[in-house]
Amino acid sequence: MPKLEFWFEYASSYSYPAAYAVGEACREAGVELVWKPFLLGPIFASQGWKTSPFNLYPVKGQYMIRDLERICAKADLPFRLGDVYDWPQFSIAAARIGLIGADEGWVETFTKALYRLEFGENKDISHEETLREALGGVTDADRVIADSRTRETKNRLRAQVDEAMSAGIFGAPTYRVGTEIFWGGDRLDDALEWAVENAKP
Amino acid sequence: MPKLEFWFEYASSYSYPAAYAVGEACREAGVELVWKPFLLGPIFASQGWKTSPFNLYPVKGQYMIRDLERICAKADLPFRLGDVYDWPQFSIAAARIGLIGADEGWVETFTKALYRLEFGENKDISHEETLREALGGVTDADRVIADSRTRETKNRLRAQVDEAMSAGIFGAPTYRVGTEIFWGGDRLDDALEWAVENAKP
Repeated sequence: MPKLEFWFEYASSYSYPAAYAVGEACREAGVELVWKPFLLGPIFASQGWKTSPFNLYPVKGQYMIRDLERICAKADLPFRLGDVYDWPQFSIAAARIGLIGADEGWVETFTKALYRLEFGENKDISHEETLREALGGVTDADRVIADSRTRETKNRLRAQVDEAMSAGIFGAPTYRVGTEIFWGGDRLDDALEWAVENAKP
Repeated sequence: MPKLEFWFEYASSYSYPAAYAVGEACREAGVELVWKPFLLGPIFASQGWKTSPFNLYPVKGQYMIRDLERICAKADLPFRLGDVYDWPQFSIAAARIGLIGADEGWVETFTKALYRLEFGENKDISHEETLREALGGVTDADRVIADSRTRETKNRLRAQVDEAMSAGIFGAPTYRVGTEIFWGGDRLDDALEWAVENAKP
């Protein structure tokens, strides 16, 4: 069965509609989906950026907001990127939980719920109450949050970020099929096509 | 009739397959196409970049090359971005000719020919002989090259770049429909859909 990795960052606005689209698209295409939460911060830092490019280049930031308004409207997803918090949000705690969810099979439900709280309701995803709300119906929140704070989980997230850098990933979302990477939510169809083509005998 | 502006830069690798796709796509969709050659250099400079982001961020540069190999293979276009010249090329002379071509109706033919020489054959588009080759069957090359060097044409190109900046354009290719901009070749369908939707009575 062909396989696609979905590399996403919980602070990334473009990862939000992508997370809503990727599961169904893979199921329809008969492609196995692997959720890969990671952090962009260390990758940006390695190329000399101290914050998001949307802050460094305001004209891109303005475009991103308008573009996501359109993309989310089309996908029937709420989008309100208010100025109630500093952009981007702190996503380390969320990424550690996402890692566990990827192991245990509930990452899609958690991720969709968290993105909707973040970008649809302007909630702060570094707050434990927001993470608990997203974990809500999914699993035992106390146990997961405790697990997410262990050294083992922290090290696994570091390793995941290292893997992203080694793979040449520099933005989110990124789809990866074997060694091929496709950057940007709008490249999902290309990535799926690549996965299906290359799985042929 | 709905209208779409195609903002492109002759030194931009992603503009190359986009220039090959946009004409037919607009004709099929019944959308009027306006070719808008411009320069990214002054726009990059205004945000503190002294060269292309693909030079500033080598990991993005590597991705761009691989991505264009895939995109061009799919579109059956030759692509060889060798190291025989410094990236990016000097595109001012080409952009001035493109402006005249947009007025006179031969911009599409010239532009496709020039991009193919640049990215398919590694020819230098700042050389007059390359420009003449692209003008080839199209029109009177002597007259066009003379026109492209007049103060009037130079000022028109400056005005076109100013218009791009005012419109919030920061990369190429960009599609513009009214005040909406869509950045990236892969957004052509979205831009066309927007044009058609918004032309409805």
